[in-house]
Amino acid sequence: MSKALERRAKLREALIEAAERAIATKGLGGLKTRELAQEIGVANGGVYNLVEDVDELILRVGSRTLARLDASLSLAEIGAAAAPREMLVRIAVAYCDFAADNLELWRALFEHRMQPGKPVPEWAISEQMELFRHIYKPLAVLFPQRSPTQLGVTARSLFSAVHGMVALGLEQKLIAVPLGALRSEIATLTRAMVDGLTAKKE
Amino acid sequence: MSKALERRAKLREALIEAAERAIATKGLGGLKTRELAQEIGVANGGVYNLVEDVDELILRVGSRTLARLDASLSLAEIGAAAAPREMLVRIAVAYCDFAADNLELWRALFEHRMQPGKPVPEWAISEQMELFRHIYKPLAVLFPQRSPTQLGVTARSLFSAVHGMVALGLEQKLIAVPLGALRSEIATLTRAMVDGLTAKKE
Repeated sequence: MSKALERRAKLREALIEAAERAIATKGLGGLKTRELAQEIGVANGGVYNLVEDVDELILRVGSRTLARLDASLSLAEIGAAAAPREMLVRIAVAYCDFAADNLELWRALFEHRMQPGKPVPEWAISEQMELFRHIYKPLAVLFPQRSPTQLGVTARSLFSAVHGMVALGLEQKLIAVPLGALRSEIATLTRAMVDGLTAKKE
Repeated sequence: MSKALERRAKLREALIEAAERAIATKGLGGLKTRELAQEIGVANGGVYNLVEDVDELILRVGSRTLARLDASLSLAEIGAAAAPREMLVRIAVAYCDFAADNLELWRALFEHRMQPGKPVPEWAISEQMELFRHIYKPLAVLFPQRSPTQLGVTARSLFSAVHGMVALGLEQKLIAVPLGALRSEIATLTRAMVDGLTAKKE
Protein backbone atom coordinates (compact mmCIF):
# COMPACT_ATOMS: atom_id res chain seq x y z
CA MET A 1 0.00 0.00 0.00
CA SER A 2 1.35 3.45 -0.88
CA LYS A 3 1.92 5.97 1.93
CA ALA A 4 -1.06 8.00 0.69
CA LEU A 5 -3.40 5.01 0.64
CA GLU A 6 -2.19 3.94 4.06
CA ARG A 7 -2.86 7.40 5.45
CA ARG A 8 -6.33 7.41 3.89
CA ALA A 9 -7.13 3.98 5.39
CA LYS A 10 -6.07 5.18 8.83
CA LEU A 11 -8.08 8.37 8.56
CA ARG A 12 -11.10 6.41 7.40
CA GLU A 13 -10.87 4.15 10.42
CA ALA A 14 -10.49 7.18 12.71
CA LEU A 15 -13.57 8.71 11.09
CA ILE A 16 -15.69 5.61 11.60
CA GLU A 17 -14.54 5.31 15.21
CA ALA A 18 -15.31 8.97 15.87
CA ALA A 19 -18.77 8.48 14.34
CA GLU A 20 -19.27 5.43 16.54
CA ARG A 21 -18.43 7.41 19.67
CA ALA A 22 -20.73 10.24 18.61
CA ILE A 23 -23.68 7.90 17.99
CA ALA A 24 -23.00 5.94 21.20
CA THR A 25 -23.16 9.09 23.33
CA LYS A 26 -25.60 11.33 21.46
CA GLY A 27 -27.59 9.00 19.23
CA LEU A 28 -27.99 9.17 15.46
CA GLY A 29 -29.23 12.76 15.73
CA GLY A 30 -25.97 13.78 17.37
CA LEU A 31 -23.83 12.87 14.34
CA LYS A 32 -22.30 16.01 12.79
CA THR A 33 -19.73 15.46 10.02
CA ARG A 34 -18.29 18.91 10.71
CA GLU A 35 -17.41 17.85 14.27
CA LEU A 36 -16.03 14.51 13.09
CA ALA A 37 -13.81 16.26 10.54
CA GLN A 38 -12.44 18.49 13.26
CA GLU A 39 -11.89 15.53 15.58
CA ILE A 40 -9.79 13.57 13.08
CA GLY A 41 -8.08 16.69 11.73
CA VAL A 42 -9.32 16.97 8.14
CA ALA A 43 -11.10 19.81 6.33
CA ASN A 44 -14.90 19.72 6.45
CA GLY A 45 -15.25 18.37 2.92
CA GLY A 46 -12.41 15.94 3.57
CA VAL A 47 -14.82 13.50 5.17
CA TYR A 48 -16.21 12.79 1.71
CA ASN A 49 -12.82 11.61 0.48
CA LEU A 50 -13.06 8.90 3.12
CA VAL A 51 -16.68 7.76 2.79
CA GLU A 52 -19.16 8.28 0.00
CA ASP A 53 -21.76 10.00 2.18
CA VAL A 54 -23.33 10.04 5.66
CA ASP A 55 -25.36 6.92 4.81
CA GLU A 56 -22.17 4.96 4.18
CA LEU A 57 -20.62 6.30 7.39
CA ILE A 58 -23.63 5.20 9.44
CA LEU A 59 -23.69 1.81 7.74
CA ARG A 60 -19.97 1.31 8.52
CA VAL A 61 -20.66 2.05 12.18
CA GLY A 62 -23.62 -0.35 11.96
CA SER A 63 -21.29 -2.98 10.55
CA ARG A 64 -19.12 -2.71 13.68
CA THR A 65 -22.21 -2.90 15.91
CA LEU A 66 -23.45 -6.01 14.09
CA ALA A 67 -20.01 -7.65 14.42
CA ARG A 68 -20.07 -7.09 18.19
CA LEU A 69 -23.66 -8.33 18.40
CA ASP A 70 -22.60 -11.42 16.47
CA ALA A 71 -19.78 -12.03 18.95
CA SER A 72 -22.16 -11.59 21.92
CA LEU A 73 -24.65 -14.07 20.49
CA SER A 74 -21.88 -16.57 19.71
CA LEU A 75 -20.67 -16.23 23.29
CA ALA A 76 -24.18 -16.90 24.61
CA GLU A 77 -24.31 -20.10 22.58
CA ILE A 78 -21.17 -21.51 24.15
CA GLY A 79 -22.11 -23.61 27.12
CA ALA A 80 -25.79 -23.58 26.18
CA ALA A 81 -27.61 -26.84 26.78
CA ALA A 82 -27.83 -28.82 23.56
CA ALA A 83 -31.62 -28.34 23.51
CA PRO A 84 -32.49 -25.89 20.70
CA ARG A 85 -35.35 -24.41 22.75
CA GLU A 86 -33.00 -23.21 25.49
CA MET A 87 -30.50 -22.11 22.85
CA LEU A 88 -33.15 -19.79 21.42
CA VAL A 89 -33.92 -18.45 24.90
CA ARG A 90 -30.24 -17.68 25.54
CA ILE A 91 -29.92 -15.94 22.18
CA ALA A 92 -33.04 -13.84 22.86
CA VAL A 93 -31.80 -12.79 26.32
CA ALA A 94 -28.31 -12.06 24.95
CA TYR A 95 -29.93 -9.85 22.30
CA CYS A 96 -31.75 -7.96 25.05
CA ASP A 97 -28.54 -7.53 27.06
CA PHE A 98 -26.63 -6.30 24.02
CA ALA A 99 -29.33 -3.74 23.25
CA ALA A 100 -29.35 -2.52 26.87
CA ASP A 101 -25.53 -2.21 26.92
CA ASN A 102 -25.30 -0.52 23.50
CA LEU A 103 -28.56 1.40 23.50
CA GLU A 104 -27.83 4.20 21.06
CA LEU A 105 -25.71 2.15 18.67
CA TRP A 106 -28.35 -0.57 18.62
CA ARG A 107 -31.13 2.00 18.08
CA ALA A 108 -29.16 3.49 15.19
CA LEU A 109 -29.31 0.13 13.38
CA PHE A 110 -33.08 0.45 13.18
CA GLU A 111 -33.60 4.21 13.10
CA HIS A 112 -31.29 4.91 10.19
CA ARG A 113 -33.04 5.31 6.86
CA MET A 114 -31.19 5.73 3.58
CA GLN A 115 -31.70 8.93 1.60
CA PRO A 116 -34.89 8.59 -0.46
CA GLY A 117 -34.51 6.33 -3.47
CA LYS A 118 -31.12 4.97 -2.35
CA PRO A 119 -31.15 1.24 -1.66
CA VAL A 120 -29.25 -0.34 1.24
CA PRO A 121 -26.03 -1.72 -0.30
CA GLU A 122 -25.70 -5.47 -0.74
CA TRP A 123 -22.79 -5.81 1.71
CA ALA A 124 -24.86 -4.27 4.51
CA ILE A 125 -27.87 -6.49 3.81
CA SER A 126 -25.76 -9.64 3.78
CA GLU A 127 -24.14 -8.71 7.09
CA GLN A 128 -27.62 -8.38 8.63
CA MET A 129 -28.82 -11.64 7.10
CA GLU A 130 -25.72 -13.44 8.34
CA LEU A 131 -26.87 -12.85 11.94
CA PHE A 132 -30.07 -14.81 11.38
CA ARG A 133 -28.04 -18.02 11.43
CA HIS A 134 -28.11 -17.83 15.25
CA ILE A 135 -31.89 -18.31 15.16
CA TYR A 136 -32.05 -20.38 12.00
CA LYS A 137 -29.81 -23.21 13.24
CA PRO A 138 -31.77 -24.17 16.38
CA LEU A 139 -35.01 -23.79 14.42
CA ALA A 140 -33.73 -26.23 11.78
CA VAL A 141 -33.21 -28.79 14.57
CA LEU A 142 -36.69 -28.15 15.98
CA PHE A 143 -38.46 -28.25 12.61
CA PRO A 144 -36.53 -30.67 10.38
CA GLN A 145 -39.47 -30.94 7.99
CA ARG A 146 -39.57 -27.24 7.15
CA SER A 147 -37.96 -25.86 3.99
CA PRO A 148 -35.15 -23.27 4.23
CA THR A 149 -37.66 -20.62 3.09
CA GLN A 150 -40.15 -21.59 5.80
CA LEU A 151 -37.37 -21.64 8.40
CA GLY A 152 -36.29 -18.20 7.22
CA VAL A 153 -39.81 -16.85 7.73
CA THR A 154 -40.06 -18.37 11.21
CA ALA A 155 -36.60 -17.04 12.14
CA ARG A 156 -37.64 -13.56 11.07
CA SER A 157 -40.91 -13.78 13.01
CA LEU A 158 -39.20 -14.91 16.21
CA PHE A 159 -36.57 -12.24 15.85
CA SER A 160 -39.19 -9.53 15.24
CA ALA A 161 -41.21 -10.60 18.27
CA VAL A 162 -38.18 -10.57 20.58
CA HIS A 163 -36.98 -7.31 19.04
CA GLY A 164 -40.37 -5.74 19.78
CA MET A 165 -40.17 -6.75 23.43
CA VAL A 166 -36.65 -5.40 23.73
CA ALA A 167 -37.45 -2.18 21.88
CA LEU A 168 -40.59 -1.29 23.84
CA GLY A 169 -39.13 -2.63 27.09
CA LEU A 170 -36.01 -0.47 26.85
CA GLU A 171 -37.92 2.50 25.49
CA GLN A 172 -39.89 2.56 28.75
CA LYS A 173 -42.47 4.62 26.99
CA LEU A 174 -45.52 3.06 28.54
CA ILE A 175 -44.40 1.32 31.69
CA ALA A 176 -40.84 1.21 32.96
CA VAL A 177 -39.68 -2.41 32.90
CA PRO A 178 -36.63 -3.21 35.03
CA LEU A 179 -34.03 -5.09 32.96
CA GLY A 180 -34.29 -8.23 35.09
CA ALA A 181 -38.04 -8.43 34.59
CA LEU A 182 -37.65 -7.78 30.87
CA ARG A 183 -35.10 -10.59 30.51
CA SER A 184 -37.38 -12.96 32.37
CA GLU A 185 -40.41 -11.99 30.26
CA ILE A 186 -38.39 -12.48 27.07
CA ALA A 187 -37.35 -15.94 28.23
CA THR A 188 -40.96 -16.83 29.10
CA LEU A 189 -42.37 -15.66 25.78
CA THR A 190 -39.58 -17.24 23.72
CA ARG A 191 -40.28 -20.59 25.41
CA ALA A 192 -44.00 -20.12 24.80
CA MET A 193 -43.46 -19.34 21.11
CA VAL A 194 -41.24 -22.38 20.62
CA ASP A 195 -43.62 -24.63 22.58
CA GLY A 196 -46.62 -23.33 20.65
CA LEU A 197 -44.93 -23.73 17.28
CA THR A 198 -43.63 -27.20 18.17
CA ALA A 199 -47.00 -28.41 19.44
CA LYS A 200 -48.55 -27.38 16.16
CA LYS A 201 -45.96 -29.16 13.99
CA GLU A 202 -47.80 -28.03 10.86
CA MET B 1 -68.46 29.77 25.61
CA SER B 2 -67.48 33.33 24.61
CA LYS B 3 -66.95 34.16 20.93
CA ALA B 4 -63.21 34.41 21.52
CA LEU B 5 -63.01 31.05 23.24
CA GLU B 6 -65.13 29.49 20.53
CA ARG B 7 -62.82 30.87 17.86
CA ARG B 8 -59.79 29.58 19.73
CA ALA B 9 -61.31 26.11 20.07
CA LYS B 10 -62.03 26.00 16.33
CA LEU B 11 -58.54 27.19 15.43
CA ARG B 12 -57.04 24.63 17.78
CA GLU B 13 -58.96 21.86 16.09
CA ALA B 14 -57.93 23.15 12.66
CA LEU B 15 -54.30 23.17 13.85
CA ILE B 16 -54.43 19.59 15.11
CA GLU B 17 -56.08 18.43 11.89
CA ALA B 18 -53.49 20.22 9.78
CA ALA B 19 -50.72 18.60 11.86
CA GLU B 20 -52.40 15.23 11.37
CA ARG B 21 -52.43 15.67 7.58
CA ALA B 22 -48.79 16.79 7.60
CA ILE B 23 -47.66 13.76 9.63
CA ALA B 24 -49.81 11.37 7.58
CA THR B 25 -48.21 12.49 4.32
CA LYS B 26 -44.67 13.47 5.31
CA GLY B 27 -44.06 11.74 8.62
CA LEU B 28 -43.06 13.30 11.92
CA GLY B 29 -40.05 14.95 10.29
CA GLY B 30 -42.36 16.80 7.88
CA LEU B 31 -44.14 18.72 10.64
CA LYS B 32 -43.35 22.45 10.38
CA THR B 33 -45.33 24.76 12.68
CA ARG B 34 -44.62 27.66 10.32
CA GLU B 35 -46.49 25.83 7.52
CA LEU B 36 -49.31 24.86 9.85
CA ALA B 37 -49.72 28.47 11.01
CA GLN B 38 -49.98 29.58 7.38
CA GLU B 39 -52.46 26.83 6.59
CA ILE B 40 -54.89 27.77 9.37
CA GLY B 41 -54.28 31.51 8.91
CA VAL B 42 -52.59 32.59 12.14
CA ALA B 43 -49.26 34.32 12.72
CA ASN B 44 -46.24 32.03 13.23
CA GLY B 45 -46.19 32.49 16.98
CA GLY B 46 -49.98 32.15 17.09
CA VAL B 47 -49.65 28.37 17.12
CA TYR B 48 -48.41 28.63 20.70
CA ASN B 49 -51.63 30.32 21.80
CA LEU B 50 -53.39 27.13 20.73
CA VAL B 51 -51.05 24.44 22.06
CA GLU B 52 -48.32 24.62 24.65
CA ASP B 53 -45.56 23.36 22.35
CA VAL B 54 -44.82 20.94 19.48
CA ASP B 55 -44.84 18.01 21.93
CA GLU B 56 -48.42 18.76 22.89
CA LEU B 57 -49.41 19.15 19.24
CA ILE B 58 -47.92 15.75 18.36
CA LEU B 59 -49.55 14.13 21.40
CA ARG B 60 -52.95 15.57 20.37
CA VAL B 61 -52.54 14.06 16.91
CA GLY B 62 -51.49 10.80 18.62
CA SER B 63 -54.65 10.96 20.69
CA ARG B 64 -56.73 10.97 17.49
CA THR B 65 -54.68 8.09 16.07
CA LEU B 66 -55.18 6.06 19.26
CA ALA B 67 -58.93 6.73 19.18
CA ARG B 68 -59.15 5.41 15.62
CA LEU B 69 -56.98 2.42 16.52
CA ASP B 70 -59.29 1.74 19.46
CA ALA B 71 -62.30 1.82 17.12
CA SER B 72 -60.58 -0.55 14.66
CA LEU B 73 -59.76 -3.04 17.40
CA SER B 74 -63.30 -2.84 18.78
CA LEU B 75 -64.64 -3.52 15.29
CA ALA B 76 -62.38 -6.57 14.95
CA GLU B 77 -63.78 -7.96 18.20
CA ILE B 78 -67.36 -7.84 16.96
CA GLY B 79 -68.22 -11.15 15.43
CA ALA B 80 -65.11 -12.81 16.82
CA ALA B 81 -65.62 -16.35 18.03
CA ALA B 82 -66.06 -16.43 21.78
CA ALA B 83 -62.71 -18.21 22.15
CA PRO B 84 -60.19 -15.78 23.67
CA ARG B 85 -57.35 -17.29 21.64
CA GLU B 86 -58.98 -16.36 18.34
CA MET B 87 -59.98 -13.00 19.78
CA LEU B 88 -56.30 -12.25 20.41
CA VAL B 89 -55.43 -13.32 16.87
CA ARG B 90 -58.07 -10.98 15.41
CA ILE B 91 -56.83 -8.10 17.53
CA ALA B 92 -53.21 -8.73 16.47
CA VAL B 93 -54.13 -8.84 12.78
CA ALA B 94 -56.33 -5.74 13.12
CA TYR B 95 -53.37 -3.95 14.71
CA CYS B 96 -51.24 -4.92 11.72
CA ASP B 97 -53.89 -3.69 9.27
CA PHE B 98 -54.28 -0.39 11.12
CA ALA B 99 -50.52 0.19 11.05
CA ALA B 100 -50.36 -0.60 7.33
CA ASP B 101 -53.26 1.74 6.56
CA ASN B 102 -51.97 4.57 8.77
CA LEU B 103 -48.27 4.04 8.41
CA GLU B 104 -46.88 7.48 9.19
CA LEU B 105 -49.40 8.34 11.91
CA TRP B 106 -48.79 4.98 13.56
CA ARG B 107 -45.00 5.41 13.31
CA ALA B 108 -45.32 8.85 14.88
CA LEU B 109 -46.84 7.26 18.01
CA PHE B 110 -43.57 5.41 18.61
CA GLU B 111 -40.99 7.75 17.08
CA HIS B 112 -42.02 10.83 18.99
CA ARG B 113 -39.87 11.60 21.99
CA MET B 114 -40.63 14.39 24.41
CA GLN B 115 -38.09 17.20 24.81
CA PRO B 116 -35.39 16.06 27.26
CA GLY B 117 -36.53 16.08 30.87
CA LYS B 118 -40.20 16.56 29.98
CA PRO B 119 -42.42 13.69 31.06
CA VAL B 120 -45.29 12.38 28.92
CA PRO B 121 -48.43 13.97 30.42
CA GLU B 122 -50.77 11.75 32.42
CA TRP B 123 -53.69 12.09 29.99
CA ALA B 124 -51.57 10.73 27.13
CA ILE B 125 -50.31 7.81 29.20
CA SER B 126 -53.79 6.84 30.32
CA GLU B 127 -55.08 6.93 26.74
CA GLN B 128 -52.33 4.49 25.76
CA MET B 129 -52.97 2.24 28.74
CA GLU B 130 -56.68 2.21 27.98
CA LEU B 131 -55.98 0.36 24.72
CA PHE B 132 -54.43 -2.57 26.58
CA ARG B 133 -57.90 -3.65 27.66
CA HIS B 134 -58.32 -5.27 24.22
CA ILE B 135 -55.53 -7.71 25.07
CA TYR B 136 -56.09 -7.83 28.80
CA LYS B 137 -59.70 -9.06 28.65
CA PRO B 138 -59.15 -12.25 26.60
CA LEU B 139 -56.01 -12.95 28.65
CA ALA B 140 -58.04 -12.72 31.87
CA VAL B 141 -60.33 -15.45 30.49
CA LEU B 142 -57.37 -17.62 29.47
CA PHE B 143 -55.49 -17.19 32.77
CA PRO B 144 -58.08 -16.75 35.51
CA GLN B 145 -55.51 -17.55 38.19
CA ARG B 146 -53.21 -14.68 37.30
CA SER B 147 -53.25 -11.40 39.22
CA PRO B 148 -54.07 -8.12 37.43
CA THR B 149 -50.36 -7.20 37.62
CA GLN B 150 -49.30 -10.49 36.03
CA LEU B 151 -51.97 -10.12 33.35
CA GLY B 152 -50.71 -6.60 32.68
CA VAL B 153 -47.17 -7.90 32.16
CA THR B 154 -48.37 -10.65 29.81
CA ALA B 155 -50.54 -8.18 27.88
CA ARG B 156 -47.56 -5.89 27.44
CA SER B 157 -45.33 -8.78 26.31
CA LEU B 158 -47.84 -10.01 23.74
CA PHE B 159 -48.38 -6.50 22.47
CA SER B 160 -44.63 -5.85 22.18
CA ALA B 161 -44.07 -9.10 20.29
CA VAL B 162 -46.85 -8.39 17.79
CA HIS B 163 -45.73 -4.76 17.52
CA GLY B 164 -42.21 -5.94 16.66
CA MET B 165 -43.51 -8.17 13.87
CA VAL B 166 -45.63 -5.35 12.47
CA ALA B 167 -42.85 -2.76 12.78
CA LEU B 168 -40.11 -4.82 11.13
CA GLY B 169 -42.53 -6.35 8.64
CA LEU B 170 -43.78 -2.99 7.43
CA GLU B 171 -40.35 -1.41 7.59
CA GLN B 172 -39.22 -3.95 5.00
CA LYS B 173 -35.68 -3.24 6.04
CA LEU B 174 -34.35 -6.74 5.87
CA ILE B 175 -36.71 -8.71 3.69
CA ALA B 176 -39.82 -7.32 2.04
CA VAL B 177 -42.82 -9.13 3.53
CA PRO B 178 -46.07 -8.89 1.53
CA LEU B 179 -48.94 -7.78 3.79
CA GLY B 180 -50.84 -11.05 3.36
CA ALA B 181 -47.84 -13.09 4.45
CA LEU B 182 -47.24 -10.76 7.39
CA ARG B 183 -50.84 -11.09 8.57
CA SER B 184 -50.63 -14.86 8.35
CA GLU B 185 -47.32 -14.96 10.23
CA ILE B 186 -48.75 -12.73 12.95
CA ALA B 187 -51.73 -15.05 13.32
CA THR B 188 -49.45 -18.10 13.49
CA LEU B 189 -47.16 -16.61 16.11
CA THR B 190 -49.99 -15.20 18.21
CA ARG B 191 -51.59 -18.66 18.33
CA ALA B 192 -48.20 -20.17 19.21
CA MET B 193 -47.67 -17.68 22.04
CA VAL B 194 -51.11 -18.30 23.49
CA ASP B 195 -50.75 -22.08 23.13
CA GLY B 196 -47.28 -22.03 24.69
CA LEU B 197 -48.39 -19.85 27.60
CA THR B 198 -51.55 -21.90 28.15
CA ALA B 199 -49.71 -25.24 28.08
CA LYS B 200 -47.39 -23.92 30.75
CA LYS B 201 -50.14 -22.68 33.07
CA GLU B 202 -47.52 -21.54 35.57
